[in-house]
Amino acid sequence: MALGKDYATQQCSIARALEIVGERWTLLVVRDAFYGVRRYNDFLVHLGLPRAVLAARLQALERAGVLEKRRYQHSPPRDEYVLTDRGIALWPVLRSLSVWGTGQADGTGRGADGAKPLRVFTHAACGTELGAYGECPACGVPVPPADVEMLPGPGLDPDPRDPVRRALLRPRRLLQPLETDRV
Amino acid sequence: MALGKDYATQQCSIARALEIVGERWTLLVVRDAFYGVRRYNDFLVHLGLPRAVLAARLQALERAGVLEKRRYQHSPPRDEYVLTDRGIALWPVLRSLSVWGTGQADGTGRGADGAKPLRVFTHAACGTELGAYGECPACGVPVPPADVEMLPGPGLDPDPRDPVRRALLRPRRLLQPLETDRV
Repeated sequence: MALGKDYATQQCSIARALEIVGERWTLLVVRDAFYGVRRYNDFLVHLGLPRAVLAARLQALERAGVLEKRRYQHSPPRDEYVLTDRGIALWPVLRSLSVWGTGQADGTGRGADGAKPLRVFTHAACGTELGAYGECPACGVPVPPADVEMLPGPGLDPDPRDPVRRALLRPRRLLQPLETDRV
Repeated sequence: MALGKDYATQQCSIARALEIVGERWTLLVVRDAFYGVRRYNDFLVHLGLPRAVLAARLQALERAGVLEKRRYQHSPPRDEYVLTDRGIALWPVLRSLSVWGTGQADGTGRGADGAKPLRVFTHAACGTELGAYGECPACGVPVPPADVEMLPGPGLDPDPRDPVRRALLRPRRLLQPLETDRV
């Protein structure tokens, strides 16, 4: 059964948000942008999704003001995709989905990945692991993503084949541009 | 292009969460459950989606341990759907999507609904409006949904036709069973 992209009958801010970020793969593209992925080929390698779908998602996110296209090379022309302030404001959505996906949120540990966390997110200023709402339990403040340090957790594949996954093994600040070992 | 429901290539807790709640309408079914909707016909009226889709979503959420079916009447048999602890743990996801959908999160006010909030969520204990992370700015604590009061905002249609929307005009605690004016 075909279901439209909009939720015309729903007068609701959640429905409005889902009209922009509710399509398949969209939030994973945004997640990658938080991890520092900016280039089309890096998204492609890391997400492993069809080119047409990636192109459509990037275009939709740009239209919605979540990503911004920036030219980083002129000949031949090459663009990268960077989160806008509106995109950065999606961090609490990703954080809460991630906590729920690991089963931390209800204490069941019923994430499909088992108990071992894949990545650990800390408040860079003090090293404390973030709470379920993305707050720092030690400092008692919501932590903006630029102040979040991402570290590999024990559940992560320690020897991935693709260069994006390899680069993401190193501890890094969110939003910092990813440097892959390109040839 | 057909895209599978799973994100097999993604070793990621966000992807795991989206495999359960990422399908169209699923999070709006969960939202309604937070508002106190429990009965099939109330979901149907409020969501306005095809019966087959609603039935599939309710079944998937039950299988995933997000909703629990409870028999409230034996002859004829009638069930209602209630959030489990695992389902209640989705509150930060809905809260953060809602804040982002209104444009509060980045201060742009770029929600498709304009600047007028549809609903206002407060900490029942002190009456303070919740912050972007679902915390109470006055008390400095994350507020569990059972302690959240939902009030109609100035953007909400004040005279809706269906009984579920009418019932949701009254201030109410989240998770309390909805009493509609059934005949």
